[in-house]
Amino acid sequence: MTTAMPRHLISIDDLDRSRIERILDRAESFAEVQGREIKKVPALRGRTVVNLFYESSTRTSSSFELAAKRLSADVVNVRSIGSAVDKGESLKDTVQTLSAYDPAAIVIRSPEVGAAQLVAGWTEAAVINAGDGKHEHPTQALLDVFTLRRKLGSLEQANIWIVGDVMHSRVARSDILAFKRMGASVTVCGPPTLIPRGIEALGCEATATLARLHEADVVYVLRMQQERMRESFVPSLREYSERYQISAAQLRPGQLLMHPGPVNRGVELSADAIDSPVALIGAQVKAGVAVRMAVLYELLVGAPLLAAVA
Amino acid sequence: MTTAMPRHLISIDDLDRSRIERILDRAESFAEVQGREIKKVPALRGRTVVNLFYESSTRTSSSFELAAKRLSADVVNVRSIGSAVDKGESLKDTVQTLSAYDPAAIVIRSPEVGAAQLVAGWTEAAVINAGDGKHEHPTQALLDVFTLRRKLGSLEQANIWIVGDVMHSRVARSDILAFKRMGASVTVCGPPTLIPRGIEALGCEATATLARLHEADVVYVLRMQQERMRESFVPSLREYSERYQISAAQLRPGQLLMHPGPVNRGVELSADAIDSPVALIGAQVKAGVAVRMAVLYELLVGAPLLAAVA
Amino acid sequence: MTTAMPRHLISIDDLDRSRIERILDRAESFAEVQGREIKKVPALRGRTVVNLFYESSTRTSSSFELAAKRLSADVVNVRSIGSAVDKGESLKDTVQTLSAYDPAAIVIRSPEVGAAQLVAGWTEAAVINAGDGKHEHPTQALLDVFTLRRKLGSLEQANIWIVGDVMHSRVARSDILAFKRMGASVTVCGPPTLIPRGIEALGCEATATLARLHEADVVYVLRMQQERMRESFVPSLREYSERYQISAAQLRPGQLLMHPGPVNRGVELSADAIDSPVALIGAQVKAGVAVRMAVLYELLVGAPLLAAVA
Repeated sequence: MTTAMPRHLISIDDLDRSRIERILDRAESFAEVQGREIKKVPALRGRTVVNLFYESSTRTSSSFELAAKRLSADVVNVRSIGSAVDKGESLKDTVQTLSAYDPAAIVIRSPEVGAAQLVAGWTEAAVINAGDGKHEHPTQALLDVFTLRRKLGSLEQANIWIVGDVMHSRVARSDILAFKRMGASVTVCGPPTLIPRGIEALGCEATATLARLHEADVVYVLRMQQERMRESFVPSLREYSERYQISAAQLRPGQLLMHPGPVNRGVELSADAIDSPVALIGAQVKAGVAVRMAVLYELLVGAPLLAAVA
Repeated sequence: MTTAMPRHLISIDDLDRSRIERILDRAESFAEVQGREIKKVPALRGRTVVNLFYESSTRTSSSFELAAKRLSADVVNVRSIGSAVDKGESLKDTVQTLSAYDPAAIVIRSPEVGAAQLVAGWTEAAVINAGDGKHEHPTQALLDVFTLRRKLGSLEQANIWIVGDVMHSRVARSDILAFKRMGASVTVCGPPTLIPRGIEALGCEATATLARLHEADVVYVLRMQQERMRESFVPSLREYSERYQISAAQLRPGQLLMHPGPVNRGVELSADAIDSPVALIGAQVKAGVAVRMAVLYELLVGAPLLAAVA
Repeated sequence: MTTAMPRHLISIDDLDRSRIERILDRAESFAEVQGREIKKVPALRGRTVVNLFYESSTRTSSSFELAAKRLSADVVNVRSIGSAVDKGESLKDTVQTLSAYDPAAIVIRSPEVGAAQLVAGWTEAAVINAGDGKHEHPTQALLDVFTLRRKLGSLEQANIWIVGDVMHSRVARSDILAFKRMGASVTVCGPPTLIPRGIEALGCEATATLARLHEADVVYVLRMQQERMRESFVPSLREYSERYQISAAQLRPGQLLMHPGPVNRGVELSADAIDSPVALIGAQVKAGVAVRMAVLYELLVGAPLLAAVA
């Protein structure tokens, strides 16, 4: 019995729990392919994936690029630097141009909230949101769920704390939606200026201190972006670190530590936390390729699970 | 009976009418490949295409990249940003370096008139001019002819108006040559400061107003580049738009509208013209990949037409 | 009887003479592949090579990219421009991220001495040093030895002069080690401010004038970097050129001329020298792809020589 996939992946809200599980199961089979010497399947041979990145990003863009190549797709990378964007071409015109090549998928990263949704209205291709401003970053959430499911078996009843600048974090937003959907309870923690009002409407609890951090099964720490300091959301990096930095000493045995990367060493995480055995940061990155292969595969091919990778 | 192809494609003048038709016929067969799920043929497997771009360009560079990949070539993109160009390496040295890799073709975009011709003197590879200053952009003209031939059956006797900054446009120059060669008559229209003296020597008529625009079968509008304003060729964008902007209301039934992209919305074209059903802008972009596949194929392989794509 | 290869190639010191010869023999077989129409072997199909370049470089990066592609690897290019490097991500974090993709090899170019060695400590991938500050550039030395061995049969007893800014040249350092290891004698020549003290410890002679240049079998001229002038190592480009520029007239019959590129025409080499028949500059670049294929192949596959390319 097949669960039909949406045409695009703009938000975690496009996926119900059974679809998320289907993507994770598929990702498991691709993770197995990654363990082989020949890390490649012919699923998308002769099809084109366009990576359209309006923000610099090593990890997300290279992860999508490699996912597409390991599915044997032809990949075209378009970046804002050195591209028509310099000529003031509108996003719509750029997308219409790229769509004329009949790509199977367009992966879009943009600083603008809602960009991926707009793109989906202008193209026949499947659109995958690789981050739109502070709105959503659904493949990050999927790889986080994948990583946790591998570690915990299930997220059901897991108590997950998300610590830091929740306000400006597309990762936080997608993660809250995904973790809740998979049955976890979520607490967000950070300076009141960086916790959005009404966050409880998403079904999570909010707190301003780390006092009850020991209750968490998983501590998910967000990147503290330097520009927030300039914008006066927090008085100084030092003050932020004193109150919210997670160090190895603060973690109790059995807790898991996650971070979407890239880490500001010594700001939101201490060096000993980053390198501690409970940190899943490397596993998250590693999951990225398999999960993105699975998203591309499910949106573009979506054949029965057993026959897929054979 | 085969028409021998030139070694390079620097100018439309390298192609007589039968060669243009041969390329267009080949492009038709590749357009058919683009309609398949596996948009790829093995024609250039194991051969290398170098894209050497000294100007930013999304559409032309990605179109050539995809054309080469869909012919199964290995593609190396070299851009002026982040390359030896920064070290003041001369074009000659760069080309000699890249030629040492035995590429089958070098695609060159440069702000300098005559760059592609120079490159052809320094390499064993087939050289394809992807735009050299305000001189020529022959593959743009070929895709324009391809698009029109599909729509009209033939360009013979077609009346084509080219509107805008003809003076600085490599597209205009290549299009005039190609349209004339295919039997069309060409009228150029724009502010006298932007129409080159002696343009009639190319066999076209010149006019400064849109008064007789209804005579045109095809209205080909050029991009109005912002820098022309700074250089005082036209007093202001607003004044230019008042006199030369094409809107949907100005087009009579049966006329076709073309533009090489990217469009300055609201400058040379109104939004309603861009989105009107007679606009072929999307078809032009789409034709780009098939036509560039055909150019690469004809220059590098040039086998009999029927057996080519099988 | 197989010579085991090191896991990484950081320095020429990682290779004894038999390993260098093994790589050169392998490069000969790949040079033969480059002469075919299909310049490609399936040796690394389904494996990933990451090119991580923190300095701009056309020739080295495109040469490695093409080498990997001609071995059928999937290649991911990461450059400092438009990448996580802009977000202040540390080299360690970037390498750990990229390593999570299980690449077979990471090729690293960095302005920092010792960067490749550090990278080797953070990854399971084979690390290839594509230049680390003024320290080493071992694949350049290997392609130089390859080019000379083809021309001379053997470097045994060859008298090689290295002329120019030896102090700041990673090429000079790797070449001295490689040339000595292959049995040549080496003399370095340049302004005393640009010859490192104690260079004789590497087993070479030093001189400040071209007086005895006729003794050389090979004249290897280094690139004179503009920034040295600003740093006052030499009074002016003109004065440097007057004393150390090599012109065709200075070369005696039978001498060979080499340069790692890109050349500053009219500074360290006159135009007539660059274009003279004894110049091997083009052959060096050409050797780059075959030698880098050989390095990738030997580090990653290392099967018996005869069966390799079949």
